[in-house]
Parts: sequence; structure tokens; C-alpha cells
Amino acid sequence: MADLNITSPSNPRLKALASLRRRRTREETGQTLIEGYEELTLALDAGVLPEALYYCPELMLDAATQTRVVDEVRRSGVDTVLVSRAAFEKAAYREGPDGFIAVVPAVVRSCADLDVGPKALTVLCEGVEKPGNLGAMLRTADAAGVEAVIAADPVTDWGNPNLVRASKGTVFSVRVASDSTAATLAWLDSRGIALVATTPDTDLDYTDVDYTGPVAVAVGAEKYGLTDEVLAHAAYKVRIPMVGKANSLNVATSAAIVIYEAVRQRGALEAPLSH
Amino acid sequence: MADLNITSPSNPRLKALASLRRRRTREETGQTLIEGYEELTLALDAGVLPEALYYCPELMLDAATQTRVVDEVRRSGVDTVLVSRAAFEKAAYREGPDGFIAVVPAVVRSCADLDVGPKALTVLCEGVEKPGNLGAMLRTADAAGVEAVIAADPVTDWGNPNLVRASKGTVFSVRVASDSTAATLAWLDSRGIALVATTPDTDLDYTDVDYTGPVAVAVGAEKYGLTDEVLAHAAYKVRIPMVGKANSLNVATSAAIVIYEAVRQRGALEAPLSH
Repeated sequence: MADLNITSPSNPRLKALASLRRRRTREETGQTLIEGYEELTLALDAGVLPEALYYCPELMLDAATQTRVVDEVRRSGVDTVLVSRAAFEKAAYREGPDGFIAVVPAVVRSCADLDVGPKALTVLCEGVEKPGNLGAMLRTADAAGVEAVIAADPVTDWGNPNLVRASKGTVFSVRVASDSTAATLAWLDSRGIALVATTPDTDLDYTDVDYTGPVAVAVGAEKYGLTDEVLAHAAYKVRIPMVGKANSLNVATSAAIVIYEAVRQRGALEAPLSH
Repeated sequence: MADLNITSPSNPRLKALASLRRRRTREETGQTLIEGYEELTLALDAGVLPEALYYCPELMLDAATQTRVVDEVRRSGVDTVLVSRAAFEKAAYREGPDGFIAVVPAVVRSCADLDVGPKALTVLCEGVEKPGNLGAMLRTADAAGVEAVIAADPVTDWGNPNLVRASKGTVFSVRVASDSTAATLAWLDSRGIALVATTPDTDLDYTDVDYTGPVAVAVGAEKYGLTDEVLAHAAYKVRIPMVGKANSLNVATSAAIVIYEAVRQRGALEAPLSH
């Protein structure tokens, strides 16, 4: 596949690229963007095949090494597009771009498409709004070997560029899905996965629950927490003890504390089955 | 104290206010800014007395209730300044301002000024760069009853407006200090506080250490972790087990996981002594 070359910031391909910052375009095309060398290589390692790769050696931290990734991607039959610095900086979403933007298939899995093991540790995020929080939860899920992260009634799609970035690319290595809250709860039941719901309105500490069986840790929206629908469905409602004046942990922090309590109880940490 | 009234976005008082976004001005004046009703009320509850309060009822979510805070602050002898919407929006640092900006004394405590109890749980952040990460750690410290958070060789000052915001105002309720790494380590020794340093380069899991005595949990800079100076001083070097492809947790997430393991081991959670 020959290399294309773009020097004009108003090139129509770059405009199409920028349009993927909009959720509607992502939903229409089934595509999303990965910016950054680190994020891209993580996605490639996870088996993601880009549909196109835009690159600018002049912006790379280490062009001699990093252009090898461009060669590898090109050999897989992917369009690779050499972009001038001015055009690349205009097309880039983030400040201080490092010379890599890839168009990749968006993750559009529903619960029905999820395959998890018999003792799955999973995470349910209901209505979480901030892409940065979802991205942070994915990093934790990746580190902790969480088998699946489900966004129930999501406000943000998994292809949101801020989410992709905050996740450091782990949105492509962790199994994620989106579904309605009702479908998610039905799926948990069908798999025999016990729901542990975090909420301030309970007396049960999160450390007093057994996480060694199949379990889903549920966290709710930043401001309002979990809905009554999820709370009513919970096997356990648990709280994280807090004494402070602000009296609220960040939602991604709360998720990390409970996930790592599950990891502690489970003992040996194992990577989940590959996708 | 009579109420001042500003309608012009180019008013010199507002320019002086905006100049506090610069670290140098904060260091010269010993002042910093609090934006937001929630952050301000938390700081007031923690005993912070503003030097001036700028407000705009038109931007408040609930002016009928929230202007009471203005009255209280005014009765304490503080300058309160009514600002027109256009002028306030120009002066505000954050998007979607909610009608409150206060000038407050910056926190400039060094380790020598810190007073902690005999079984203090403390946190040492060495060289952490991102204000958002420091703010997130303060929220966790507030929730977990951490007695002091020390920034060693800090890149960011505690008055950084993004830090104040990310902390939700807990930078004023949690005891914080800044010092050189050497002075911080000497202070820990003088208090008999054991240093538990987080690093990937160890085989000791963070759950295999006893946190029930006086202990400082240390986390390092986002990219490079803790320096050799801190690692060499540690009573224990601990790792958080990770299996993922990205293989790195966010620094504030790592701190939260270790802090809450300490809380779990300590059993009952108690608020620290007041300042």
C-alpha cells in the first residue's frame, strides 16, 4: 500500500478525521480515533487493526524508533498518511501531539456479546458522565485483571476521544460493553454474577463482603450515584468509610478501592482470557 | 464593611484577581483563589478566613440560599464585592462559574510546622506534577482521615487553582505542607514515622505491610516514580499487583489503594485532630 501525503490543513481527509470527535459521526461511521504513540501501540498489541494511520515524524519523540510502527501497520494493508506538521497540529485533538493519529473501529459491544469466566470480576458503571473518570476506571480495570467493564445507560460512548486518551488506550485492551441498565442487570443474573453496589446509604463496609466468586462492582454517576433500579437489584450494598469534610471520593477512586479489595481477597492476580 | 460593586471587566481589582492564577504572584502575595460555592464553604468550615470575596448572584445556582454565605463573610469584616455577570465571567478561571471567587491566604506550611498524632497516617507526594492528581489525592486523604499530606520537592504549589478545584476545597481541610525531600525525610525520622514507598521494583505486595503504626505512604512523579533518595530511605518498598497491558495505575489511584489498605488494617476510621 503506497503512502499518501497531506500538506494542507484544509485537506478533506483531515476534515473527516476531525469529524470523528463528534459522537454522532462516531455512531454513524462505527469509527473512533486514537491519538498518541503509547495509546496506539497498546491498541495494536490488543489486536486492534486501524482503518487508517496519520503520522508526522517531525512531531515524534523518537522518529527513528517510532516510524517502525508505521511500517508495520502499512504492511498489514492499512492506509498510512504522511502529514505535514502544520496540517497535523490542526488535525490533532490534544495539545502537544506526538505524531500519531489512527482511525479505528469503535467498540460497540453489548452485554450479549460479552464472554466472561466462571469467577469473573466485572465492573458496572451506571450513568458515569466524565470521560476522564471512565478512562481512569479502565486503567484500574486493566491493571487489576477485571474481565469486563459495562457502561449501563451511558452518557459517554467508549469512543469519546477524551476517554480513549484518559484510558491510555486500555479501552482497547479491556473488554468493554454498553447496554441499558435493565439489559445489564438481566445479563448479570443470567451469568450468576452477584452485584455489589457502592452507595453512602448503607452500614455495610466494602471490606465485609466476599468478592471471591463471580461479582460485579457497581458505581454510579458522579453527582447522583446509582439509581434505585440498580440498588434494588444488589446482592450487597456497600460503603467506603469516610470521615472527611468533603465526604465524597471521586467515582474512579471509589471503584479502584473496591476493585483492589476484591483483588486482595482473591489472592493471586491473573490476567483475564484474551478477547 | 460596605459592599463594593464592580461592573467593568477591566476593573483593576479583577486584574489583580486574575494575576493570582500565576504562581509567582501567589508566592509574592501569599494569596490564592478559591472558585466555587462548594469549595468555598468547605474552606470556611475548615476555618479559612478570606481576604476578599467576589460574587455574582446572577450566576449562582441558588442565589436565595447562597448569598447568605456572602452575608456571613461580610460580617466577619471581609471585603465583599458584587460583580456584574460580564465582569465575573471574564475574571473566572473555570468554565461555567457559579458566582463565587474568594482570595484566601495560601498554604505555605513546611514540615517543621506540622503537628501529627503518635499513630499518624500521612502521605508523601514527591515531585507529582499534575494539579489534578494532587487534588484527587487530597480528596482521598480527606475521606480517609489522613493527618498530613506533604509535597516533597513539589512541581506544583498547593495554591494552584486547578489543584484547589480538583481537591474540591479539601486543600484547606487536610493538613498540607511543602518541603525539600531531604527535610521531609528528616522530619519523618524525627517523628518515628515509617516510610512505605510505592514502586514497581519490589516483590513485596502493599497488602503485606503493617500500617497500624505511624506510617507515611509515598508516591512519586507520574512518569518517573520516586527518586532513589526516597527509595533508599524506605522502611518498606511495596508494589500494587498489576496484570494489565498498560501496566501502570494513575498515581492518585495508587495512593488511594494503599491509603485504604491502611484504613482497612486500622479498623475504626477516625477524623484527625483539627488544625
